[in-house]
Amino acid sequence: MLGGVPDTLGTDYAPIAAEMADRDAVGFVAVGDRFDDDLRWLTRFSGPDREYAFVATVDGDDADSGGGALDPNDGESGVHTSLCAPALFGEQARREFPGDAVQTERQGDPAGVRAAAALAAAGADAGTVLVPQGIPHDAAVYLEEAGYEIASTDVLTRARATKTDAEIDRLRRVQRAAVRGIARAEEVLAEATPDPDAEGGDGAVRWNGGVLSTERLRRQVNEVLAAHGVRDAGNTVIGAGATAADLHYTGTDVIRPGETVLIDVSPRGPAGYYGDVTRTFAVDPDGGWERRAYLAVERAREAALDEVAAGVPASTVHGEAAAELSAHGFRIDSDEVGFTHSTGHGVGVSLHEGPSLGGDGELEAGNVVTIEPGVYDPAEGGVRLEDLVAVTDDGYELLGEYPFSLVPGNRDGEPPRDRNGE
Amino acid sequence: MLGGVPDTLGTDYAPIAAEMADRDAVGFVAVGDRFDDDLRWLTRFSGPDREYAFVATVDGDDADSGGGALDPNDGESGVHTSLCAPALFGEQARREFPGDAVQTERQGDPAGVRAAAALAAAGADAGTVLVPQGIPHDAAVYLEEAGYEIASTDVLTRARATKTDAEIDRLRRVQRAAVRGIARAEEVLAEATPDPDAEGGDGAVRWNGGVLSTERLRRQVNEVLAAHGVRDAGNTVIGAGATAADLHYTGTDVIRPGETVLIDVSPRGPAGYYGDVTRTFAVDPDGGWERRAYLAVERAREAALDEVAAGVPASTVHGEAAAELSAHGFRIDSDEVGFTHSTGHGVGVSLHEGPSLGGDGELEAGNVVTIEPGVYDPAEGGVRLEDLVAVTDDGYELLGEYPFSLVPGNRDGEPPRDRNGE
Repeated sequence: MLGGVPDTLGTDYAPIAAEMADRDAVGFVAVGDRFDDDLRWLTRFSGPDREYAFVATVDGDDADSGGGALDPNDGESGVHTSLCAPALFGEQARREFPGDAVQTERQGDPAGVRAAAALAAAGADAGTVLVPQGIPHDAAVYLEEAGYEIASTDVLTRARATKTDAEIDRLRRVQRAAVRGIARAEEVLAEATPDPDAEGGDGAVRWNGGVLSTERLRRQVNEVLAAHGVRDAGNTVIGAGATAADLHYTGTDVIRPGETVLIDVSPRGPAGYYGDVTRTFAVDPDGGWERRAYLAVERAREAALDEVAAGVPASTVHGEAAAELSAHGFRIDSDEVGFTHSTGHGVGVSLHEGPSLGGDGELEAGNVVTIEPGVYDPAEGGVRLEDLVAVTDDGYELLGEYPFSLVPGNRDGEPPRDRNGE
Repeated sequence: MLGGVPDTLGTDYAPIAAEMADRDAVGFVAVGDRFDDDLRWLTRFSGPDREYAFVATVDGDDADSGGGALDPNDGESGVHTSLCAPALFGEQARREFPGDAVQTERQGDPAGVRAAAALAAAGADAGTVLVPQGIPHDAAVYLEEAGYEIASTDVLTRARATKTDAEIDRLRRVQRAAVRGIARAEEVLAEATPDPDAEGGDGAVRWNGGVLSTERLRRQVNEVLAAHGVRDAGNTVIGAGATAADLHYTGTDVIRPGETVLIDVSPRGPAGYYGDVTRTFAVDPDGGWERRAYLAVERAREAALDEVAAGVPASTVHGEAAAELSAHGFRIDSDEVGFTHSTGHGVGVSLHEGPSLGGDGELEAGNVVTIEPGVYDPAEGGVRLEDLVAVTDDGYELLGEYPFSLVPGNRDGEPPRDRNGE
């Protein structure tokens, strides 16, 4: 049963009910703050930076019919869900939480104590309570002191990996904003000019009257993200040359002519969902390593995408990308040079979540994953091309599209899109 | 002793060493991901969204001199510190961590297991290990299984509440960027015009060809934050009228003539430190509740600031603000109407940290706190004025300044500052 808030994200507590039934548990508890993505998914509450709790118990009607079993005919999730929120955030919690009850009593107590009280109030007096393995230790201890046996569950990891249509819609919207960020970066780089005499003769790319650094470019990207209502979330990775071979470079580096400039944009939207897109450019490249790398990564991307569909082992997708890169002469067996990472990861309310394309499982319809082959060499630079796709029964939907070109703005008849923020 | 990274933030592990000595502990362990602010403070590592560990043990030289006692003459912190980082982030960890060692071995193991191995490798074979009370439960269990006794400590909360000069410098820079965001909001509101016929006769404020909403205004603010190299962090609270009385409104609401528009900007800078500033405006106010509220809050702000200095009880600062608001006829005894919250909180790598101005302690030099009286009435609106101050021995330093005016742009000879982003 759901409370008064329209649940526009289709949050489905049925996997929690099923897990409770399978494990013969009387409850499920998660404790965390606004930075805990499990809590965000469970509650849709963009709460404060101090702890609150989500509590699920067997729904009263179902409990009466015996042992917490689900009644698949009642059209409900089979759980009663509560959010124990801080009082100052009660109004917001009631506006955002799609579950049954927002509780603001017992403000002085730690979240774990309040969760135990909520379990008891819902009639779950003793027995097993399922928790995510990373629940704060003090909350676990409080639950144990209240007489519950704690057992960890990965039900949230599994449940979150398959998205509802509404979640995919949010991901699509954020990805479109992310693509605008890439477009802005390409626009700036297309306007930039090589200056071999800059920086004491080391050379640099100049833009808008000054040397262009990764940080100047990052600010241009982040402005466009903000204009489109998403936040960069500290994730706008831009590296140039050697720092493009650093997978997560968020520092300041001068951009030099011919160097690969790798731009990985992963903003977060207002509902908590992330986008994730990467393009690589070079201003005035000389046709060496970076062109070979770009071509190889484009081919690897296509090879990986060709495999994506429900039922396909994740390792097949990664294997095809790796094989293509290997065929182009790039190493796939090193942590430092060549293809050093997995082909992709799930994206949702966490930037990195299940399924991993380096993992063992099969893709399922509703998975949303990045496809992001890349090759790196600290002596040369780095090239990565990344898109976000929703897995479907017979293939995939590309969430947000952006064309490919190593040289910025170098597409006949297809200029980089205009910045179109307000 | 420190490793090869210049520690530009003056991170001081001495309080951890002292706590270990006081508690007769062999180690200190914190486990968390990039969203854990304790980890950020301890490691300066802006790591990934999966868990890593910080481990401190008694420094070898000190251990030799007996029982983990500090040698105050060696000019070192007395601890050996390690960061157990994910391999893909090893380069970044070595760049950012000011402690002794970055360890990337045992990638397949959970962070708690790696922390236990690091303790053992440093010679701490058994005994008490101090942990923050919110350490992930699985990490605590792994440490216990490795033979350590776990005991919680609040040493980080205490240590973080007093800032180094370098930390105050970072907070000052972020606050200056936050003030630019407020300036942009005032600029937009100064350009806006009341339109009593808009929105079906309900009236609205128009700007740049359309109705101005809290979300449109928020995007303008967030663009300026991005242009100045800080991120809005999802914290740009803008409410209008009834939603200005909601302390944390981040939704979309039409801004109407005469309504209070409350803008609370709390961006995060690249080193992880936050800013926090609030101003309140009204376009074409009618001189009623909002003017009385503004005047009262201005006076409360001055009364609170007059008390701020090292050695003053935090409750005195709050008491003076409350007394002033009460003297102006506003309630101070309700959760819904009047002055509903504390006068301020500490700001650092968390937006909310110690000390609280609603708490029991005394202010200390190096505390950085908000001063943010406000009054709210869901039937009228909300007014809050917030600044950030560093407590000094004989008073305070205002970090980032911005003038006061209920009517945007209505300061003789002192127009809102120009937007000056790139």
